[in-house]
Amino acid sequence: MSTPAELRAAIRAGTWDEPTAALAPGYAQANLVVLPEADAFDFLRFCVANPRPCPVLEVCDPGAFEPVLTAPGADLRTDLPRYRVYRDGELAEERDDVRALWRDDLVAFLIGCSFTFERALLAAELPVRHIEQGVNVPMYRTAVACRPAGRFSGPLVVSMRPMTPAQAIRATQITSRYPSVHGAPVHVGDASVLGIPSLGVPDYGDPVEIRDGEVPVFWACGVTPQAVAAASRPELMITHAPGHMFITDVPDERLAER
Amino acid sequence: MSTPAELRAAIRAGTWDEPTAALAPGYAQANLVVLPEADAFDFLRFCVANPRPCPVLEVCDPGAFEPVLTAPGADLRTDLPRYRVYRDGELAEERDDVRALWRDDLVAFLIGCSFTFERALLAAELPVRHIEQGVNVPMYRTAVACRPAGRFSGPLVVSMRPMTPAQAIRATQITSRYPSVHGAPVHVGDASVLGIPSLGVPDYGDPVEIRDGEVPVFWACGVTPQAVAAASRPELMITHAPGHMFITDVPDERLAER
Repeated sequence: MSTPAELRAAIRAGTWDEPTAALAPGYAQANLVVLPEADAFDFLRFCVANPRPCPVLEVCDPGAFEPVLTAPGADLRTDLPRYRVYRDGELAEERDDVRALWRDDLVAFLIGCSFTFERALLAAELPVRHIEQGVNVPMYRTAVACRPAGRFSGPLVVSMRPMTPAQAIRATQITSRYPSVHGAPVHVGDASVLGIPSLGVPDYGDPVEIRDGEVPVFWACGVTPQAVAAASRPELMITHAPGHMFITDVPDERLAER
Repeated sequence: MSTPAELRAAIRAGTWDEPTAALAPGYAQANLVVLPEADAFDFLRFCVANPRPCPVLEVCDPGAFEPVLTAPGADLRTDLPRYRVYRDGELAEERDDVRALWRDDLVAFLIGCSFTFERALLAAELPVRHIEQGVNVPMYRTAVACRPAGRFSGPLVVSMRPMTPAQAIRATQITSRYPSVHGAPVHVGDASVLGIPSLGVPDYGDPVEIRDGEVPVFWACGVTPQAVAAASRPELMITHAPGHMFITDVPDERLAER
């Protein structure tokens, strides 16, 4: 089994350019959002005001590309398999290396990712349907507004995993231990309460089967900060490409509270 | 029993100018730190990197003095019984109103306060010695460095409450529920591990009795962000005066996770 540092080196060398979900079990992965310093204070205020969708694992110094707390020695410009580059809020290109775009005023944010709590759910023998079905988790824009901060505002995005009510209760206990990777569910049951018209038509990812006796269980999703940041049309924003996360040196269990 | 809004009105009118510890049981109180916008992003990064001593309850918009999330309608310039004003990191004066000092570039931070978890400890029949003795909680600068962020760095400050080992275990369970008011203890037992030379000589507050069979239990303390901010010598910093906190509309239980 490769260590996080070995995997990052393979990604940096171009040996691995696939999604990261299966890699480095037991170590936390992270969403990446990079913004110019002019936007960074408002964005951090947005994250702090909305900790469920935007749990901050690390904020680098302006211009710095080494996450000294979560993966010392790593390089956030090269160590993710694929990046997305947004200009004025529009997706401009995908790249596997953003060194040529880096600037002294860029601030990198690492935000918690659901892989950590999904591993905990699986360890508790709870179903994670999109993993069973080999597809991406279904995600939905809701009618619930995040708390705005400065130029950043927008709707909460949620991910959904179907479970029986008893499983949903157990999943609430388990994910409550992990506030820095979205924590407890935000809703269970009727999707229309969140303003979701059809569970079969997610806004991101793929639909999954909901079986007899199951209810949809919704968690705040790390797509929220990306979607909100893009909607504010920053001059430049760099993120990971979906599923192509940053692998940290942080053991999942270090993120557990209680 | 007065509501938080009634108490803030009394403070604003000058009818109450004493410490706030006994007021509005069941509602969270907060530490106040106000800094110029030029320092605010680094300070917020410092808080996010050090959540135990610096749990952020709310960050106001630059220039704003109404905490719209935690106490809509309140005025942070008038609604605390006493303020401290620091210039270039030195205590310059105490005031009961800072309207005359307010500027469009000032950013107000509200940071969690231990009163919430002390009420939970008392409700569980655990001892809170400084309350029993009618003095201020003893606080100590430690040899443990906080994670630095930009111009902000400095030592962790802790508060101490003596308990038996069994009580310390129960207190760990209870305070773990409240991450936004400092959460679980950071250390139990030998004070020298934290670099504290003498428990009888606290750096802030008053010494308390440690009885036979008791061990010192240490929690991260909200004095940390104030001490760190002052050490960076910002041109202007406004804080609450010790014990003269901001009373929010947030029920203590809303801060409980699990």
